[in-house]
Amino acid sequence: MNTFGTNFRITTFGESHGPAVGCIIDGCPPGVPLNESDIQPLLDRRKPGTSPLVSPRNEQDKIEILSGIFEGKTTGTPLALLVRNNEIRSQDYEDLRTLIRPGHADYTYQQKYGTRDHRGGGRSSGRETVGRVAAGAVAMKYLAGKGIAVSGRILSVHDKTGQGTIEAEILAAKNAGDSVGGIAEIVAKGCPCGLGDPVFGKLDAQIAGAMMGIGAVKAVEIGDGIAVAGRFGSENNDPITKNGFLSNHAGGILGGISSGQEIVVRIAVKPTPSIAKPQRTVDVQGNDAEITVKGRHDPCIVPRIIPVAEAMLALVLIDAVLEQAKYK
Amino acid sequence: MNTFGTNFRITTFGESHGPAVGCIIDGCPPGVPLNESDIQPLLDRRKPGTSPLVSPRNEQDKIEILSGIFEGKTTGTPLALLVRNNEIRSQDYEDLRTLIRPGHADYTYQQKYGTRDHRGGGRSSGRETVGRVAAGAVAMKYLAGKGIAVSGRILSVHDKTGQGTIEAEILAAKNAGDSVGGIAEIVAKGCPCGLGDPVFGKLDAQIAGAMMGIGAVKAVEIGDGIAVAGRFGSENNDPITKNGFLSNHAGGILGGISSGQEIVVRIAVKPTPSIAKPQRTVDVQGNDAEITVKGRHDPCIVPRIIPVAEAMLALVLIDAVLEQAKYK
Amino acid sequence: MNTFGTNFRITTFGESHGPAVGCIIDGCPPGVPLNESDIQPLLDRRKPGTSPLVSPRNEQDKIEILSGIFEGKTTGTPLALLVRNNEIRSQDYEDLRTLIRPGHADYTYQQKYGTRDHRGGGRSSGRETVGRVAAGAVAMKYLAGKGIAVSGRILSVHDKTGQGTIEAEILAAKNAGDSVGGIAEIVAKGCPCGLGDPVFGKLDAQIAGAMMGIGAVKAVEIGDGIAVAGRFGSENNDPITKNGFLSNHAGGILGGISSGQEIVVRIAVKPTPSIAKPQRTVDVQGNDAEITVKGRHDPCIVPRIIPVAEAMLALVLIDAVLEQAKYK
Amino acid sequence: MNTFGTNFRITTFGESHGPAVGCIIDGCPPGVPLNESDIQPLLDRRKPGTSPLVSPRNEQDKIEILSGIFEGKTTGTPLALLVRNNEIRSQDYEDLRTLIRPGHADYTYQQKYGTRDHRGGGRSSGRETVGRVAAGAVAMKYLAGKGIAVSGRILSVHDKTGQGTIEAEILAAKNAGDSVGGIAEIVAKGCPCGLGDPVFGKLDAQIAGAMMGIGAVKAVEIGDGIAVAGRFGSENNDPITKNGFLSNHAGGILGGISSGQEIVVRIAVKPTPSIAKPQRTVDVQGNDAEITVKGRHDPCIVPRIIPVAEAMLALVLIDAVLEQAKYK
Repeated sequence: MNTFGTNFRITTFGESHGPAVGCIIDGCPPGVPLNESDIQPLLDRRKPGTSPLVSPRNEQDKIEILSGIFEGKTTGTPLALLVRNNEIRSQDYEDLRTLIRPGHADYTYQQKYGTRDHRGGGRSSGRETVGRVAAGAVAMKYLAGKGIAVSGRILSVHDKTGQGTIEAEILAAKNAGDSVGGIAEIVAKGCPCGLGDPVFGKLDAQIAGAMMGIGAVKAVEIGDGIAVAGRFGSENNDPITKNGFLSNHAGGILGGISSGQEIVVRIAVKPTPSIAKPQRTVDVQGNDAEITVKGRHDPCIVPRIIPVAEAMLALVLIDAVLEQAKYK
Repeated sequence: MNTFGTNFRITTFGESHGPAVGCIIDGCPPGVPLNESDIQPLLDRRKPGTSPLVSPRNEQDKIEILSGIFEGKTTGTPLALLVRNNEIRSQDYEDLRTLIRPGHADYTYQQKYGTRDHRGGGRSSGRETVGRVAAGAVAMKYLAGKGIAVSGRILSVHDKTGQGTIEAEILAAKNAGDSVGGIAEIVAKGCPCGLGDPVFGKLDAQIAGAMMGIGAVKAVEIGDGIAVAGRFGSENNDPITKNGFLSNHAGGILGGISSGQEIVVRIAVKPTPSIAKPQRTVDVQGNDAEITVKGRHDPCIVPRIIPVAEAMLALVLIDAVLEQAKYK
Repeated sequence: MNTFGTNFRITTFGESHGPAVGCIIDGCPPGVPLNESDIQPLLDRRKPGTSPLVSPRNEQDKIEILSGIFEGKTTGTPLALLVRNNEIRSQDYEDLRTLIRPGHADYTYQQKYGTRDHRGGGRSSGRETVGRVAAGAVAMKYLAGKGIAVSGRILSVHDKTGQGTIEAEILAAKNAGDSVGGIAEIVAKGCPCGLGDPVFGKLDAQIAGAMMGIGAVKAVEIGDGIAVAGRFGSENNDPITKNGFLSNHAGGILGGISSGQEIVVRIAVKPTPSIAKPQRTVDVQGNDAEITVKGRHDPCIVPRIIPVAEAMLALVLIDAVLEQAKYK
Repeated sequence: MNTFGTNFRITTFGESHGPAVGCIIDGCPPGVPLNESDIQPLLDRRKPGTSPLVSPRNEQDKIEILSGIFEGKTTGTPLALLVRNNEIRSQDYEDLRTLIRPGHADYTYQQKYGTRDHRGGGRSSGRETVGRVAAGAVAMKYLAGKGIAVSGRILSVHDKTGQGTIEAEILAAKNAGDSVGGIAEIVAKGCPCGLGDPVFGKLDAQIAGAMMGIGAVKAVEIGDGIAVAGRFGSENNDPITKNGFLSNHAGGILGGISSGQEIVVRIAVKPTPSIAKPQRTVDVQGNDAEITVKGRHDPCIVPRIIPVAEAMLALVLIDAVLEQAKYK
């Protein structure tokens, strides 16, 4: 359950308060030029401490490649990618040893496993995504060689859609001891027609699973998404001409297979559940309690979720590109 | 790519215009009382010809169990489920041999494989879902023994939300030679807390992949879905008391693991792409053309997609229930 | 556990005393010319009743292809292959309802599952191999198009190595109410260099697993097999010249990857455990008992295991050929 | 292809001349007491430089656990195990840049990939087994808690079977610039009845694949192995009494499922292909050449293969034990 992908398989490891996080990539094609500087920038976009809009934690997140490279290129053997943890303040979480945080995995982990790592969520921490982002950067390097580029942006936060108003909205939530949700859009340009497989291997099915597998995501749309439910077929079908499609309501995927148009994905991200406002909850014995979550949390996770969502889309696409290579 | 599930694995087979469709189920626990009458009703809800709202095709869809049963109970060995095709009017599709239908998989299949079965979509046909529904019925039988029930309903069609207005809307689209989309909600009651796994095996990730893997689905929401993007954390977190949760914005899943509340899933279904109105398209040589899709199509696929979506949710849940059994 | 293969995946179903046996093949390449007459001959070689050396049971084993074929060629969609059971004499097994047969799976199944199908072994019956052989025939048809041919022969039975003496040895065992073991050799000619993968995906590892997964096989050798343990490196290495290898001690596989030489596999097959001579055993309550196994059993299973072993080698090879296609 | 196992999955990484080797274990049960001292002894038994019988290379092979441990116990999250490479003398391999070593993977890798890492075999090096042995040590720690112990020993080298004569035989081969093969036996004691699954998941099938996947292994026997081919059924069946089996010809596995007796596995190991004696070969252009392999090689790999084979058997068994837990 810590492995993603079929042809380009990543297995992530590490906890928020352990010695290290990272991943192994199995199935990376040989001959891809690669070094640490291809991976570090995406990790830097994901890491906290870079602006007042995000958590002030100071994580260095320096990547090290342990295997799979020979003379500056991948060899086709497994790539082991390692990031040491450096900024651990477990004492911030001491109060949480016995209290269940609403909106977090605390309740369900406690019920499922009978125990949980109270220090920042352990394996359920967003820190697990370091491995995904590192793997995604490798995927993007390969995809770039095929002319495929993945990029994401914030569409909205709460009811705001402009950059300035979005930032103000996030800071207002932070100052109120609260948090706020939003919507991100991830687009892939340059995808050839033909990626994805029939039945259970549809490209959009894989994308939906990948995106909903990111913590805090509660909805996934492809193309026009929910809006298609309010349309007639004559409005929603994308007409085809000898010069191509006249519209892209489908978001670049038809019958589960990429059409050659832009692939458009949107995700709805819930407000960070860690808030300073008092909330009703229970302790681990099941008694009523009140909680005020301390620590250095993101008032809005949408900015930091974007490199993770880009990575996941890149991982789905490289898997499909390698699968498609079988037919050639 | 024709296999779904890890513990309760189904592999479907069959084309819309071949001799038969069906599936093999591998991993069904032994001792489940099962005969054809447990499966037939769900197939009957899926099949066409049952009301003026759906396609008038007359498919019998009679199920036969070929293996895996001994004295009325499953034995733990593979269940082979078979439905012979009986209502095949391939000539209806003769015009489509050279024309690409907008909104269908025709364009992408032709590009990916260099060929396609023009007779009703072949493997990309909705008829493939017979195998899924049959398997889903077996899963539901098992889940019922655990107190888990899955059911779906139409929430809306176009902008209509009441049963009478929904039916009128579908008939109006049909009479206009058009089609119309809608939203369905699938709910699972009785799920214990603890189903699902961390990281890539999250229950909501699996549900999202399963739902988006149904043809015509363009968005998947869990719980309040897209609405969470417009909320503050203090509004969106579900408070916990010693008597349980005070709300269910999360839709029964926290940190990717079921919370014991109702699991709530919504899917947005696009209008059937097969419409009688003329549309711009191309032929297989890439020349501009016009198409009017004949045949006996569903003016709205939402009613018939509901048993398929119920089946997919049941398949995800039985897989998670069997996974969870490892921890006991 | 009923699925074999990664790229060319077969899932078998069916019990010896149920309605049918067969398999689904997922991943068969499109465009392979195929009909029932490509499969029937291999099934006929496997079936009993064809000579005094094997069981006199009269099984028709007539194959039916239910899906995946269009106009005489595979389409790339799943192939469902079906064989109805016709010769069922369950009463032959009535005595075995309470007695454990030594050398069979009875003891371990009873312990593992708490129950077992006493009628001919149920799923543990050799009849399960019908699905493997049918799938193997499809694989061989594809491999033949690549110039690869698989064939097997009996090397020895007991201590006899010539055809006439082998037949006499089997009949002597039969007349004595006993059974006898032997060795079979399976060879693949025409394999290109390069099949197989490093580490856990070695071609010989896959072959060994496939062969040992056939009931009654207790040893697997590649090339010179056990004999290499008694050699010096200077004897065992196969010298290479510009005209090729000077010997084939390695059996066509070096470092887990095919070398382009003949692939040579040998299997040791135990004597059929069902014998008419009285044996010490226990009943299902664990009391001491004596058993004399009646019914129409093979006095030596080696002749009928050969088409199964050929099928398994073909399945491993087609999987490797399709895997290798990714690199081209 | 770098992943082994279904429930206890290991993915190994690293090359003989890269920065590090190791593995990730996914699926290790929570609550297993574990630290580096549980792993180091098995690595020490595998490493070279410990006696005149093996390679004099000085590899430290110091293990580091990077994740998956909390307060001295496994948490159920992935274990990342790391060993830095320290003794790299790539110049020893400079002559091999253009020459193909007979009996090694050089020829097949060069043909398959068009290139190969000439420095000690790269990923095809025996050094890859460090990750397997580390994972096997974790598996053994878990199995010990269930009363299961795995151990191996040398049965023979060339035609010698006693400890003193075996050592003399190895040193004689070394002094002659040659190498020598042998047979090892690996036994598992304390296995409960019921491990393994029908059809393709048979315990002996998994063991055979695991053992043949170790470099240099050319045959695998279960129980009496090849000897069963020369027996009658009345000799080979293990009689059963209320006090248990009267013999163990089957090697502890019946119908693919463990019987509760000792599991007995033997492997035939070829002589190390790297020898100082001159051999006929070709260069990478295909011209005839002569080769004398220098470097610090093992004159007999049997002693160092034993901890690897123990590890592989332990990995198969823990996988089966965890699979079996589903039925309880």
